[in-house]
Amino acid sequence: MPLVSFLSDFGLRDSYVGQVKAVMLTACDSLVVVDITHDVPAQDVVEGAFQLMSAIGSFPRGTVHLAVVDPGVGTERKGIAARLAGHTLVGPDNGLLTLALRRLADLHDVVLDEQHGYLAAAPPLVAVELTVEQFWRQPVAPTFHARDIFGPVAARLASGVQLEVLGPLLARLTNLPFPTPIQTSERTLVGQIVHVDRFGNLTSNLPASLVPAQAIVRVGEATIAGLQPTYGHGHEPVALIGSAGYLEVAVPGGDAARQLGLQRGDELVVELATSKPVAVRNWR
Amino acid sequence: MPLVSFLSDFGLRDSYVGQVKAVMLTACDSLVVVDITHDVPAQDVVEGAFQLMSAIGSFPRGTVHLAVVDPGVGTERKGIAARLAGHTLVGPDNGLLTLALRRLADLHDVVLDEQHGYLAAAPPLVAVELTVEQFWRQPVAPTFHARDIFGPVAARLASGVQLEVLGPLLARLTNLPFPTPIQTSERTLVGQIVHVDRFGNLTSNLPASLVPAQAIVRVGEATIAGLQPTYGHGHEPVALIGSAGYLEVAVPGGDAARQLGLQRGDELVVELATSKPVAVRNWR
Amino acid sequence: MPLVSFLSDFGLRDSYVGQVKAVMLTACDSLVVVDITHDVPAQDVVEGAFQLMSAIGSFPRGTVHLAVVDPGVGTERKGIAARLAGHTLVGPDNGLLTLALRRLADLHDVVLDEQHGYLAAAPPLVAVELTVEQFWRQPVAPTFHARDIFGPVAARLASGVQLEVLGPLLARLTNLPFPTPIQTSERTLVGQIVHVDRFGNLTSNLPASLVPAQAIVRVGEATIAGLQPTYGHGHEPVALIGSAGYLEVAVPGGDAARQLGLQRGDELVVELATSKPVAVRNWR
Repeated sequence: MPLVSFLSDFGLRDSYVGQVKAVMLTACDSLVVVDITHDVPAQDVVEGAFQLMSAIGSFPRGTVHLAVVDPGVGTERKGIAARLAGHTLVGPDNGLLTLALRRLADLHDVVLDEQHGYLAAAPPLVAVELTVEQFWRQPVAPTFHARDIFGPVAARLASGVQLEVLGPLLARLTNLPFPTPIQTSERTLVGQIVHVDRFGNLTSNLPASLVPAQAIVRVGEATIAGLQPTYGHGHEPVALIGSAGYLEVAVPGGDAARQLGLQRGDELVVELATSKPVAVRNWR
Repeated sequence: MPLVSFLSDFGLRDSYVGQVKAVMLTACDSLVVVDITHDVPAQDVVEGAFQLMSAIGSFPRGTVHLAVVDPGVGTERKGIAARLAGHTLVGPDNGLLTLALRRLADLHDVVLDEQHGYLAAAPPLVAVELTVEQFWRQPVAPTFHARDIFGPVAARLASGVQLEVLGPLLARLTNLPFPTPIQTSERTLVGQIVHVDRFGNLTSNLPASLVPAQAIVRVGEATIAGLQPTYGHGHEPVALIGSAGYLEVAVPGGDAARQLGLQRGDELVVELATSKPVAVRNWR
Repeated sequence: MPLVSFLSDFGLRDSYVGQVKAVMLTACDSLVVVDITHDVPAQDVVEGAFQLMSAIGSFPRGTVHLAVVDPGVGTERKGIAARLAGHTLVGPDNGLLTLALRRLADLHDVVLDEQHGYLAAAPPLVAVELTVEQFWRQPVAPTFHARDIFGPVAARLASGVQLEVLGPLLARLTNLPFPTPIQTSERTLVGQIVHVDRFGNLTSNLPASLVPAQAIVRVGEATIAGLQPTYGHGHEPVALIGSAGYLEVAVPGGDAARQLGLQRGDELVVELATSKPVAVRNWR
């Protein structure tokens, strides 16, 4: 089954998402499309990258992931396709795809070579710049590459077209300026809230590997001792590892963001019970 | 065709719905998924149950209905699958599925045995507790049973797996505390607004069978004499039987909730032209 | 592949969209449905018509387009199906379909015969009134023709049923009162904003053919000299031809509607560099 996941900041109020799907089905009529989300805030590449990373592990090997949050559409930024561990990602080269690539690398025990501001595209990570127009829809509207370039390319990749025919190999991909946790003492990690979900749950940039079960979490005016296995009962804030693999703060049956008065970007401090230094640079 | 309907309170802003679909397609690649809605207010089991009941009659025999509004995810509440009249429902045992089961029973002239707070699971209603882990996705995130238990089970049921292999038979299902209309005199029924739709139409808990065409309906400051066949013209509030089979109040071309200042939970009184007592306990 | 596009004002909060899809899949189980949008403002036929027109060119020949924005559901307004250039449109006869028919005519160099308030249905445009009940779902709820008439008819058309068996031929279709640009001098065209998209981009009713690259565009307090190829960079308002084929005003990386304080219906003036009269009556 040719399967394409689709993430964008197009919203569902306009016809953009439907047009991209129509064009993909024109190119491959057995295609199945699964929406990840289209409610990424307009032009918010970091939020889009976080959502794609959170979801990618749930898709089967062979999936093509079409992701478009593209403030620079029609300018000199490149269009790219990148393949790693049986998944292929298609979108603009603005960092949108890099968190998901790192997540794939982690899931498959692959080490990626990260440079300052760039991610090296060396095997097993293969990337191309999209330049071969025969795989695009014509004419290309300069404001709608999702419909006219990325969508047709994703559909053709899903139907078996090889990555390498879409354009020249790229040596490196633009990296995303995603916030990294900071270790301020042997026992203290400072992270931040990188996502607030529909339930008001606060997801941080602290991965499970950095947060032991006995950690003390401070966020806003709340101090939370130890992690819980799930949201559970009660009305007090709890800390737990969410389904994306990161430390979350939630209020069972409630809305942590509203009740604690917190939002994306706010700081979150983890105090460790042990002073053993942690390997923050491998945080993801 | 393996068909799964999908209802949740996950919203479309996060990737949760997409992840569940990805996992279902991994388990059954010919699956077709139809979203009922994912905009059930967070953790509002009653609203979710109402929406599932409203929609279920439009799906064909053989459909598997995946429904997840699950404030108790990861706690001791059971996960269940229940089969009735050729439909199979999968979700938490918190009452979310019971209105839809009653609707199926009505559509197929089956009498269900209702106990105080429970629904007996006796043939033709068959229910199991989901306990056999081989049908789940591993590892199971304690906060995301929709992706790791309910979704995979729904997909496998749709692809032909038998209900009985998923876990032990259950004798009864947790019932939903759904409001029942009250007969306050031989001629007077008091119901309430249980749903406000996108158009501002007010749906009550009074089924068509209880509301004769000549009834007088009082709601807020409006008094409406007799039912109309459809929304029609004009700008006055009208009463009618909506597509879900319940008494609705609407303002043609307008928004009844806004114009009448009403919301879910508000009272609605029906005065009957005849004093013949009605069988309220069979209201659904 | 039987393909149906689906546009409505049903929103995604209720189960209406899911019910229509369930009924269509019951009628044709290999059907693929692509949502255009369901967030047309309630009962806003003009907005629905604009969205359908914007999207239709992205769908392949053979698509059936189901469009329902239907304030008159259940009243004497007709249900229709219309075929042009390999596309078939299904919905109420309230003007919702006519912009899309004109767009199809333009794309395929067909001239339609427009009368005052009506569109003549002469070959190659063929239209029928939906009257043959055997193609409907029974019983028909008078408030939900999308589920019980339009949806089943669309699914059956997609699966190969001929238009002509659905009811008698119609001679004309109700036209939409869509705003036409006005030429106020040899060098001045006055249009209006007909759509504001998710990004705050302002789409006008001025088609590309009327707006030369050197035009000066005045909207609100902004004066914009010349068209750009795409949204590009910077923070000043730009004018460009959008993917729907109309003059748009956007703020790169920003929200033109908010920053300029403009909304649908607001005036937009184009000053031409040449005094050669333009053919406004052929504007679409």
